[in-house]
Amino acid sequence: MTTAASAAALRNIATELRIDSIASTTEAGSGHPTTCMSAAEVVATLFFGEMRFDPKNPQNPDNDRFVLSKGHAAPILYAAWAHAGLFPRADLLNLRKLDSDLEGHPTPRLPFVDVATGSLGQGICAAVGTALNARRIGSDYRTYVLLGDGEMAEGSVWEAADVALYHKLDNLCGIVDVNALGQSRHTQFEHQMDEIAARWNAFGWHTLIVDGHDVAALLHAFAAARAARNNPTMILARTIKGKGVAAVEGKDGWHGKAFKKGEEADRAIAELRTQLVGATTHPAIPPPASKSRETTKPDLSQMPAPSYKPGEQVATREAWGTALAALGAIDRRVVALDADVKNSTFSDRFEKSFPDRFYQNFIAEQVMVGAAMGLAARGAIAFATTFACFLTRASDFIRMAGLSNARHQLNVKLTGSHAGISIGEDGPSQMALEDLAMMRAVPDCAVLYPCDAVSTERLVVEMAAYHGLAYMRTSRPKTDILYGLDEQFPIGGSKVLHQSANDVATVVAAGITVHEARKAYVQLKGENIHIRLIDAYSVQPIDATTLIAAGKATNGVIITVEDHYVAGGLGDAVSEAVAPAGLAVHRLAVRELPRSGQPAELLDRYGISATHIVDAVKKSA
Amino acid sequence: MTTAASAAALRNIATELRIDSIASTTEAGSGHPTTCMSAAEVVATLFFGEMRFDPKNPQNPDNDRFVLSKGHAAPILYAAWAHAGLFPRADLLNLRKLDSDLEGHPTPRLPFVDVATGSLGQGICAAVGTALNARRIGSDYRTYVLLGDGEMAEGSVWEAADVALYHKLDNLCGIVDVNALGQSRHTQFEHQMDEIAARWNAFGWHTLIVDGHDVAALLHAFAAARAARNNPTMILARTIKGKGVAAVEGKDGWHGKAFKKGEEADRAIAELRTQLVGATTHPAIPPPASKSRETTKPDLSQMPAPSYKPGEQVATREAWGTALAALGAIDRRVVALDADVKNSTFSDRFEKSFPDRFYQNFIAEQVMVGAAMGLAARGAIAFATTFACFLTRASDFIRMAGLSNARHQLNVKLTGSHAGISIGEDGPSQMALEDLAMMRAVPDCAVLYPCDAVSTERLVVEMAAYHGLAYMRTSRPKTDILYGLDEQFPIGGSKVLHQSANDVATVVAAGITVHEARKAYVQLKGENIHIRLIDAYSVQPIDATTLIAAGKATNGVIITVEDHYVAGGLGDAVSEAVAPAGLAVHRLAVRELPRSGQPAELLDRYGISATHIVDAVKKSA
Repeated sequence: MTTAASAAALRNIATELRIDSIASTTEAGSGHPTTCMSAAEVVATLFFGEMRFDPKNPQNPDNDRFVLSKGHAAPILYAAWAHAGLFPRADLLNLRKLDSDLEGHPTPRLPFVDVATGSLGQGICAAVGTALNARRIGSDYRTYVLLGDGEMAEGSVWEAADVALYHKLDNLCGIVDVNALGQSRHTQFEHQMDEIAARWNAFGWHTLIVDGHDVAALLHAFAAARAARNNPTMILARTIKGKGVAAVEGKDGWHGKAFKKGEEADRAIAELRTQLVGATTHPAIPPPASKSRETTKPDLSQMPAPSYKPGEQVATREAWGTALAALGAIDRRVVALDADVKNSTFSDRFEKSFPDRFYQNFIAEQVMVGAAMGLAARGAIAFATTFACFLTRASDFIRMAGLSNARHQLNVKLTGSHAGISIGEDGPSQMALEDLAMMRAVPDCAVLYPCDAVSTERLVVEMAAYHGLAYMRTSRPKTDILYGLDEQFPIGGSKVLHQSANDVATVVAAGITVHEARKAYVQLKGENIHIRLIDAYSVQPIDATTLIAAGKATNGVIITVEDHYVAGGLGDAVSEAVAPAGLAVHRLAVRELPRSGQPAELLDRYGISATHIVDAVKKSA
Repeated sequence: MTTAASAAALRNIATELRIDSIASTTEAGSGHPTTCMSAAEVVATLFFGEMRFDPKNPQNPDNDRFVLSKGHAAPILYAAWAHAGLFPRADLLNLRKLDSDLEGHPTPRLPFVDVATGSLGQGICAAVGTALNARRIGSDYRTYVLLGDGEMAEGSVWEAADVALYHKLDNLCGIVDVNALGQSRHTQFEHQMDEIAARWNAFGWHTLIVDGHDVAALLHAFAAARAARNNPTMILARTIKGKGVAAVEGKDGWHGKAFKKGEEADRAIAELRTQLVGATTHPAIPPPASKSRETTKPDLSQMPAPSYKPGEQVATREAWGTALAALGAIDRRVVALDADVKNSTFSDRFEKSFPDRFYQNFIAEQVMVGAAMGLAARGAIAFATTFACFLTRASDFIRMAGLSNARHQLNVKLTGSHAGISIGEDGPSQMALEDLAMMRAVPDCAVLYPCDAVSTERLVVEMAAYHGLAYMRTSRPKTDILYGLDEQFPIGGSKVLHQSANDVATVVAAGITVHEARKAYVQLKGENIHIRLIDAYSVQPIDATTLIAAGKATNGVIITVEDHYVAGGLGDAVSEAVAPAGLAVHRLAVRELPRSGQPAELLDRYGISATHIVDAVKKSA
């Protein structure tokens, strides 16, 4: 096909994509047609003039990837895949229906969607991850990511810009659809293309300004991006929102508004049809160019058993680092991401052994989690780690990772270290006391909170093997080793550390409070008061069977104790688990803003030390 | 004082600040002396050569403000205030002790700290808020904010950069302490000052590069910043981490490490003492230059009562917008912040009436909440609003707002609209199902979730009057008006909508599910099954007394129903409240990733519709 013929075909396809975007949103009665219309030439040229992929197999590991960071333009993404032949165009009219996977914003329920988008500024972070992944698997696939211009206000975009520069991701090409209109008003920089370009240039990206409705200019820009070396490329496409339908072109008040069924939509579509030149043909889509490395199935039985000496004290964060490095040797899919705290979280042990699978993000937790999503979406088992409190910085990304896990195969594994008041003197800004609530609110996310080095090491393997999202909470202080080196810790299980026929209360602890509960057990035993002590290392799913049995065996008295705020943590998890048995839960937890101090004095001051457990047992039993 | 004499004095003060930073962290046995040492000249010149403030009254409304965005340099901040005369230098040795307010990272327990810092990239967002506040109160105070260079990796820094530019905050001056070392390694850009300057220039800031250890150069830069008009200024100070003690200068491995007590610390301090030239004198600190407007006490009795017609249907988000605009007329402290969704949240009604107290942040939720913190810290009642799901983007800021509320007077009022699956077709990325968990995990934060327009309007006034943080969750669909126009809704209360002597179960609902529960009530009544129905509009604090009484009166059967994931929401709140009475709670909540669909069919599909309530009552009772 000649370039001229190709350009004509692409222009027609762009018009068809506009028509489909209007038809589907009108049928749905809601959606964002005008934001699709500004991007029509960009999408048409990418899918039919630039990307190499197998249109019948969106999951081919060597396909070029396309991430729709401006997720509200979902209808045009769906239309593009329909035109590529993956499913009939008629299906587009099921947009936003409950029984269709063509949702209002894209989710990985669709085979051609790697990560869910619709919260702006996240797709570009995921794209950093898919671009890193190409290196991991030895593929020369390229990653394309389409952003909105309003989206550039999200700081996470600039986190992605920095990290992509640092890793020299010349296999990454972004396109900003600069249509100058946000939801409620003009964007901050409207069509000041030079102002926008200055930013991307300053962040070290190859930057090109093009007319986003000129397919020849777009093809040229994509070719330049493909030829660029070392640095990623950002193409700034000057566009008009609602392009193609004169009544809405560049008009405020048309964001997120479908054309009304009947005359309004019909007239718009008729106007677009007049822009078609001849019959619409679809240029052949070139297949992926390379064949990536095949990954051999790991043999987890090769994982060394934990190795500690009797009496040794080891922080769970350190045991985590040991286990991750060991796991990396056995499973090449395992990668690690850091936000400049590797020497505190002990992820530096993994880096030392596997520098090529260790990705530094500097102090930028959003892109760290976003990149982990992109890596995991392409087959990696991505361990992203920082202080637990700073994972809240990526809370919206974690929310979207949960959604991206719709197929239960997004292997993002988060670890939050330095949890709770037991960190001590650094003070409350460094104390995670809401991370369990945040992670429990992610459906199907395993939430693990080991209390010793042995259970930590075992649970690192469990979380790697778990299908989908998992979170581990680790602690700063060194703690006793409680478990035998051969003990196993399945997700969803728990450990009954003490029990007798005379138990008057069940105490449920996890992590650091297990050690306080053990002290309480000893003290109470000295007073001939017996308690059942459970280590709920798997906070989600939680071992309801064991908890209910224990509660029933101890006169219905269940006391939870956790180094976390009372809202959304272990106490709530246990409460929900035992409610069907009619059991109530007494919660010991942090209930006010804590202060700097020594760990032991803080545990006591905020009501979760052995002394408080003893008191609670005596009062309840 | 001559400039030469002044410079000599400032150099001595810088050295004293270094000595104090070492002495206090060594005494504490932990902390970050080397990150203080790089900033010593910056802090000395700011406090004793640039800022105008009353050193005995840090809360003087016209004082220049100083925000330590790199919060781990807390010891030098404390030392500066001791040198300014606020408290004895000897107190510095109480650093990080449980009974001292000189915590590991700064919190507003100290009168000279506006917002808690220690999570990087937040102080500059708060500084945008304090700079906006100067305009609000008609003061010409200036805001200074000190950042670390590693901190620039946080995307929120660039959100602040954009918003400060947009609002032309020439009363804002940032300083980056470019010491080239992060926690675990060199920063991304080390000492490439031009690389860093290019970014700030591209973001439209006046940008100056100086030797951060040259007090004359710093004074000159501050003067230039003061003279600059329209745009904010960023001073990039090239520094050396650990400056002043040769053994640690520019050395990796000294982040967050105190000098060992005894020889190591003594030697370092001795080395610094040799750098003192003559006796240390403190230049007089100029008093604040302007007198801000006094705010008259608002008369909330002037607030118009809600005004709706019988049978009218109004979305709570819309009633919120109506009430906020009305409140703005009565209380001039009220300001509103938006993230480009004002036409969906109805904050555009406030903007229309009070454009000078309405701050647009574009799509940047972190700086929106951060700026609200800064405004609130200086006396505003700052309503920041977006879709509830996108508030998770600012989760770490909300966590720090909680900490900044240590004095219970940080009037940040967040509203999250479009909560839950009841938004319908836009799909799961736009559905907040974890916001109650996030907000309940903030100590002392009022969490409100009204079900109709009347209660919404009343609760907007309640949240404004509440001391400290408050959150309101609003819904997208139009809903019936349930309450009389004169009804009151105190925080901590609830409404019993139906009760009888024959009630077999208590159903607790809030927001959208109140309407489902009412349908269930009618249906059950038709079958001669009676339930007690409670509207728990105040999710935190929750009305434990009413809930326990209801539970006891209905055979211990309590069913909660919420448009939220099961973790951390209404069910958990009710469960915690009734646990002391030995009552368990059956929770109806969303338990899986939802899909796009129509609101009614989604409520049914995900188990929180009237049908499911009816079933649960029949099964439980």
